[in-house]
Amino acid sequence: MTEFDDALALETVDESLSTGRLDDRWAIGGAVNGGLLMALTATALGERLARAGGPAARHDAPIAFSAYFLSASTEGPVEVRTEVVRVGRAMSTGQARLLQTGPNGPVERLRMLASFGDLRASAEPVLRSPEPPDLPAPDECVDASASPADFRDGVPMLGRIDLRLDPATAGWTLGQPSEKGRMRGWIRFADGRPVDAVSLVFFLDALPPVAFDLGIMGWAPTLELTGHLRGEPADGWLRVELSTRTVTGGLLEEDAMIWDRTGRMVAQSRQLAGIRVPGASGGSTA
Amino acid sequence: MTEFDDALALETVDESLSTGRLDDRWAIGGAVNGGLLMALTATALGERLARAGGPAARHDAPIAFSAYFLSASTEGPVEVRTEVVRVGRAMSTGQARLLQTGPNGPVERLRMLASFGDLRASAEPVLRSPEPPDLPAPDECVDASASPADFRDGVPMLGRIDLRLDPATAGWTLGQPSEKGRMRGWIRFADGRPVDAVSLVFFLDALPPVAFDLGIMGWAPTLELTGHLRGEPADGWLRVELSTRTVTGGLLEEDAMIWDRTGRMVAQSRQLAGIRVPGASGGSTA
Repeated sequence: MTEFDDALALETVDESLSTGRLDDRWAIGGAVNGGLLMALTATALGERLARAGGPAARHDAPIAFSAYFLSASTEGPVEVRTEVVRVGRAMSTGQARLLQTGPNGPVERLRMLASFGDLRASAEPVLRSPEPPDLPAPDECVDASASPADFRDGVPMLGRIDLRLDPATAGWTLGQPSEKGRMRGWIRFADGRPVDAVSLVFFLDALPPVAFDLGIMGWAPTLELTGHLRGEPADGWLRVELSTRTVTGGLLEEDAMIWDRTGRMVAQSRQLAGIRVPGASGGSTA
Repeated sequence: MTEFDDALALETVDESLSTGRLDDRWAIGGAVNGGLLMALTATALGERLARAGGPAARHDAPIAFSAYFLSASTEGPVEVRTEVVRVGRAMSTGQARLLQTGPNGPVERLRMLASFGDLRASAEPVLRSPEPPDLPAPDECVDASASPADFRDGVPMLGRIDLRLDPATAGWTLGQPSEKGRMRGWIRFADGRPVDAVSLVFFLDALPPVAFDLGIMGWAPTLELTGHLRGEPADGWLRVELSTRTVTGGLLEEDAMIWDRTGRMVAQSRQLAGIRVPGASGGSTA
């Protein structure tokens, strides 16, 4: 079993409850990566819709999903409580809550609303679609696995992915951010696991924070992330581009777009993240 | 009382239940405008947080909100059921469900997740912010109230707003869309009601669909809309810009940005909307 499928493995306890396990291998600085949490939550919700049968069972891809992050997830058991909100002809909407047990009982880690549909049906024909960015070949990019060992030790998740950053947007790795608020690169799973719809949910939040390119280092916790899947991805290298245009009061929006091997834009997202900037009082989720 | 405040008036039934009334004056083609529904839902959730007291009471603006639209709302009584999900130091997260009574019982119209905060604290300092678009003066723009009477009769909501479209993006009113996927204009309330945070929630979804500028006419029902408030708006004319880059399989993303009188970007959103295009099978919520 691939590392990603292992991380997404769930046991169905009853109609509305699934259990799984968060693994430190997907951690960044002590907390589990938000993209993985979203992929796991969406998987549980998709399985719930499949069990519901009828049109809901055909709605197997999260066409639109919004995750609100409530507290930092840690290694250990996790449960996902799901609800079918509405079953329609072309889309079904559900809700899921990811919980872990804290010292005083269950603690909600994230809550997600999502509309599932048939990705193939909702992706054709293509009338307009953003062109992929021009990137140097993967071998001419900055290989994240070549980062210093003491850095990688704090980011075990880097070992799960094969990430190559465009040198033009990787200056921050040398202390020279471009300050354009942009990051671009190639990404795929390190163990060769094929790209599919649910992996896009993960890849939308798998790069380092775009804030690094503004010279704002440090953890940038996601408050909210909404993503849209816009096409069934072809397997192979994905191109990802992050950008930000708005940084105010300890909050920054990060837009992500993913193109597949064929150059088709297959997923996009926007998140609001907290950052530490001098003079800002808001933004932190603490 | 202004028309907008009248539409947002709620009665508190118990801690988690508020009731109100949807008025046909905010309708578009038989359904109540989604922006108004979001503003009403956010108002109920803000009141819930105020009742919770403590830090939650200081979190009075929906900094991030995601609305999933489930069925079309109609004139008549409405109830909003709210839940406090998490109270934090800088942000509080809640959930709200907007319901109406159908022939077989309650029908959910929309469900919202939102994180509220102190908009002033989370908006300063401004490190980066998108510049406002250059627009001709309001008097040199296309006045939506000058549209044909038989068109306005189907869109009573047009009477609630003062909307002036940039002639460069209003060609569709004459059957000549620019096909750039863009719409820009000035907007304010028709009755002079001041602009504030909750009104931005409404104005993010108050313009005609950007699909019109692609020559795709007809209703474009919102499936999901996520918005971020990024500044306390100064009162006066707002500038709004809509754009779309992705139209696939009966689904289109619409990005909105709002600048206040001083030129500051105060709100942005992205929605996934259904459209009718030849050859598309997905997209409709029906």
